[in-house]
Amino acid sequence: MNPLLREIRHNPLLWLLAFVPVVLAIAQMQSEAHTLLFVLSVLAIVPLATLLSHATESVAAKTGDAVGGLLNATLGNLTELIIALTALGAGQYILVKASIAGAIVTNTLFMLGASFLLGGLKYHTQEFNRASARFQAGLLFLATVALLVPSVLIAGGAALHPTFMQELSLGLAVLLIAGYALGMLFSLRTHKEAFASVDAGESHEASWPIGLALATLAGVTVLVALVSEVFVESVQKAAETFGMSSAFVGFIVVALVGGAAEMASAFSGARKNRLDLSVGIALGSAAQIALFVAPVLVLLSYFIGPTPLDLQFWPGTVFMVLIATMTTALVTTSGRSTWFLGVLVLMVYLIFAMTLYLLPDQA
Amino acid sequence: MNPLLREIRHNPLLWLLAFVPVVLAIAQMQSEAHTLLFVLSVLAIVPLATLLSHATESVAAKTGDAVGGLLNATLGNLTELIIALTALGAGQYILVKASIAGAIVTNTLFMLGASFLLGGLKYHTQEFNRASARFQAGLLFLATVALLVPSVLIAGGAALHPTFMQELSLGLAVLLIAGYALGMLFSLRTHKEAFASVDAGESHEASWPIGLALATLAGVTVLVALVSEVFVESVQKAAETFGMSSAFVGFIVVALVGGAAEMASAFSGARKNRLDLSVGIALGSAAQIALFVAPVLVLLSYFIGPTPLDLQFWPGTVFMVLIATMTTALVTTSGRSTWFLGVLVLMVYLIFAMTLYLLPDQA
Amino acid sequence: MNPLLREIRHNPLLWLLAFVPVVLAIAQMQSEAHTLLFVLSVLAIVPLATLLSHATESVAAKTGDAVGGLLNATLGNLTELIIALTALGAGQYILVKASIAGAIVTNTLFMLGASFLLGGLKYHTQEFNRASARFQAGLLFLATVALLVPSVLIAGGAALHPTFMQELSLGLAVLLIAGYALGMLFSLRTHKEAFASVDAGESHEASWPIGLALATLAGVTVLVALVSEVFVESVQKAAETFGMSSAFVGFIVVALVGGAAEMASAFSGARKNRLDLSVGIALGSAAQIALFVAPVLVLLSYFIGPTPLDLQFWPGTVFMVLIATMTTALVTTSGRSTWFLGVLVLMVYLIFAMTLYLLPDQA
Repeated sequence: MNPLLREIRHNPLLWLLAFVPVVLAIAQMQSEAHTLLFVLSVLAIVPLATLLSHATESVAAKTGDAVGGLLNATLGNLTELIIALTALGAGQYILVKASIAGAIVTNTLFMLGASFLLGGLKYHTQEFNRASARFQAGLLFLATVALLVPSVLIAGGAALHPTFMQELSLGLAVLLIAGYALGMLFSLRTHKEAFASVDAGESHEASWPIGLALATLAGVTVLVALVSEVFVESVQKAAETFGMSSAFVGFIVVALVGGAAEMASAFSGARKNRLDLSVGIALGSAAQIALFVAPVLVLLSYFIGPTPLDLQFWPGTVFMVLIATMTTALVTTSGRSTWFLGVLVLMVYLIFAMTLYLLPDQA
Repeated sequence: MNPLLREIRHNPLLWLLAFVPVVLAIAQMQSEAHTLLFVLSVLAIVPLATLLSHATESVAAKTGDAVGGLLNATLGNLTELIIALTALGAGQYILVKASIAGAIVTNTLFMLGASFLLGGLKYHTQEFNRASARFQAGLLFLATVALLVPSVLIAGGAALHPTFMQELSLGLAVLLIAGYALGMLFSLRTHKEAFASVDAGESHEASWPIGLALATLAGVTVLVALVSEVFVESVQKAAETFGMSSAFVGFIVVALVGGAAEMASAFSGARKNRLDLSVGIALGSAAQIALFVAPVLVLLSYFIGPTPLDLQFWPGTVFMVLIATMTTALVTTSGRSTWFLGVLVLMVYLIFAMTLYLLPDQA
Repeated sequence: MNPLLREIRHNPLLWLLAFVPVVLAIAQMQSEAHTLLFVLSVLAIVPLATLLSHATESVAAKTGDAVGGLLNATLGNLTELIIALTALGAGQYILVKASIAGAIVTNTLFMLGASFLLGGLKYHTQEFNRASARFQAGLLFLATVALLVPSVLIAGGAALHPTFMQELSLGLAVLLIAGYALGMLFSLRTHKEAFASVDAGESHEASWPIGLALATLAGVTVLVALVSEVFVESVQKAAETFGMSSAFVGFIVVALVGGAAEMASAFSGARKNRLDLSVGIALGSAAQIALFVAPVLVLLSYFIGPTPLDLQFWPGTVFMVLIATMTTALVTTSGRSTWFLGVLVLMVYLIFAMTLYLLPDQA
């Protein structure tokens, strides 16, 4: 267990692990202290997510390029998946959908924008692998089209059979997973030379022995699931206390909590002038949530939740995902970045965050 | 008549010509066998469209660059025009509109995507003339804006005079034709050097003597018109039998039938690593339908149909055209293609096809 | 006063100054002659705007790069600001909003398109500074997102508190001004080398002594304010006389009048093969109106108008701004222009102008 303890000693973020037993204990004793439980569960999820992503990377590093890439691509957003599954089991469909869309928007706008800004404050101009960024932007574009279709049909005033939206969502989910699988075949096999520098970046970190990595993966997954349950139960009531709309909580707070670990890696990459790494994490993570996590949730909802999950989102949500995808497409055409590009992207995110914060809750 | 017969012997697609007399005979005798007539008319239109496009090219090749380009640009989608005119005469306005929009979407997404995929399965990376693709994408963008305007006004809840939409459609049609004419001046005259490789590609095919070409053009046009009448009369009832929504039939089936000949050329170009040819056919054909066929139908509707045709489309249709144009713009920025780009573009088409297939018919 | 008189003698546009006393006198005597007053005020504003922009540039030239850039960036659209403030004071909110959106659309589509066309008729291909155009396109994209948000919320059917739209507009205004300020820091300070050729272009014109420039600035501002009052009072009634919808007047006529001076500079730049100058004026002016004039009007509306101004626009308006921004993004990716690119951009403008002209006034 040496490498794990060493890592905990060196990474202050992991000291937050102390909150894991605290939140689970208080959840047992004082299940009505929603605000306290919300804050504690946020503080506990962040270090767990960090461990989870490090464990995934370590397993991936040991298993060779293709399988490793596959593992990273499927388990890289395990935290988001567990939180969403917990919310799904609790029947909180609005929270599930808000957290999916919020994770896409937060990863593309906040994580990408802050990476550009942090990198640009240190370096005059930075460059990144355009081919790789375009590939992720293409995947995001496909997912956005899939998410737009149900909303456009509704907006068009179509008289729809009650089962139509479920059939459509199931079909879209299968198409998106197929697109994602083919995308992995493309980026890990047939054209992997185009994605070279991103992979090189990620293997730099020290990796754990395989036994430790697998044990951590299993143990931490259980812990994340337990803490997520507390988080999902408390988030609604806590939001009311803080005067936040539930849209703001699902879209902004959950997404920032779930992505904290990846953000730490992306920002540190940008400060080291390895912007390829940052762009890869931000866009790769967004694409993974859109083309893997969301469809998997739709499929699993047939076994877990009270009713199947569909892909019909609130129009405002779809709009934000669309703008995030367009921003990504515009930003990745040049392959260069400066601090002001970061400001522009962050400002778009701020506009969304402010709107959701001000939005009254009946909406 | 030797070259025509030789071509028929060598091109298995043309053996389908045998269905032309069959469908016309059965239409006379058993006009109620809708499903049979639908299938037979589809099988008969495909070889006729192939002959028509070969005859047009042969005439174009004999008449020199500028006039030839003009001929190709106006008669290149004669099949689509005849089918739409037949539907217009029968007062089937929804079918007319669906087939226009469907042809744009099918050419940009299916024809382009399948060309990328087929070419990419054989060659690691393929390149194409960016300037030419951008020109076509620009024309498509203009047409998309024109198609969007009426829908946005309706969606904005404007209280509109009954004659307003007709005046607007007439104005838009004139503007689009003017844009198309200026585009031909640009690509065939003032800046033709930028479009060089596409033209070079198309002149490769063996061309017929001018007399044969003109006779084929005239004769086949009459045959297409006759078979189109059978097709338009049977399509609605046949769709019900197959359980297909009329939106699916107009958008997908009619577009695939009408464009079969061009698809054969585009795909064969991609397999021969002449992707310029494929991109030119796919986008050129889409632009031609949007900026020439559709406006001409609006103008002709004042003489042919029971009431004038307007350019107000169902919102879902406009959305698909918009996404097709955005996809084109994104895809043509780099001028390179791989198999996965083809998958991405085809997936967008699949999403649309699936949605239209599932969509209940009241919509 | 020599340089001012010399300029007036050499610039025929300035001879229109004779209409300034005429319009003010007639407004006193015959305040009911709306059509006459409208025509005269248009004729009087054009030369005043020309003087105003020349005076601003002269002051800017004397005060060094950074301060000068700042002055140009804030006072460059003083005419538009004064007209909008006058309309604001008169409580004509629809005119204010139409003139803001119209100025953005007119500058990006008409000024840019006509520059491309006029330049392209003289030169086969022209090039312009892509980095600078992209920067302005980025600012416009940010502003468009801000303008879209309120409309999308309304379209999404959200039940909104009456104060929500005001709070949101205030927040958006502050964000936009902050974005604009950071953009100036970027383009005038930290990365000014990327904007080099545009600045070089503008300093070519002969500049006035500082005293004359300041006196002109002050005096002409007062005159523009006086004439604007006549213009705003007469525009509605005059439009009825000419059979123009008020949307057409606000969007097209006011924008063309307010931007006449800048158009003269942009077109002359294009004819001299200094397309950087034209693109800089067109996009810079649009960005300035979107990120500086519009938010300043929102902030000032708390002190001037009867009720605060919000940023909720008519959906058709938002659509046109969105298309204008997309056109800008598409056009600026290549950094090259030909006459046909100008035609394409102008055609989009024509589609909008025609639609607004045909649109019945109840809308």
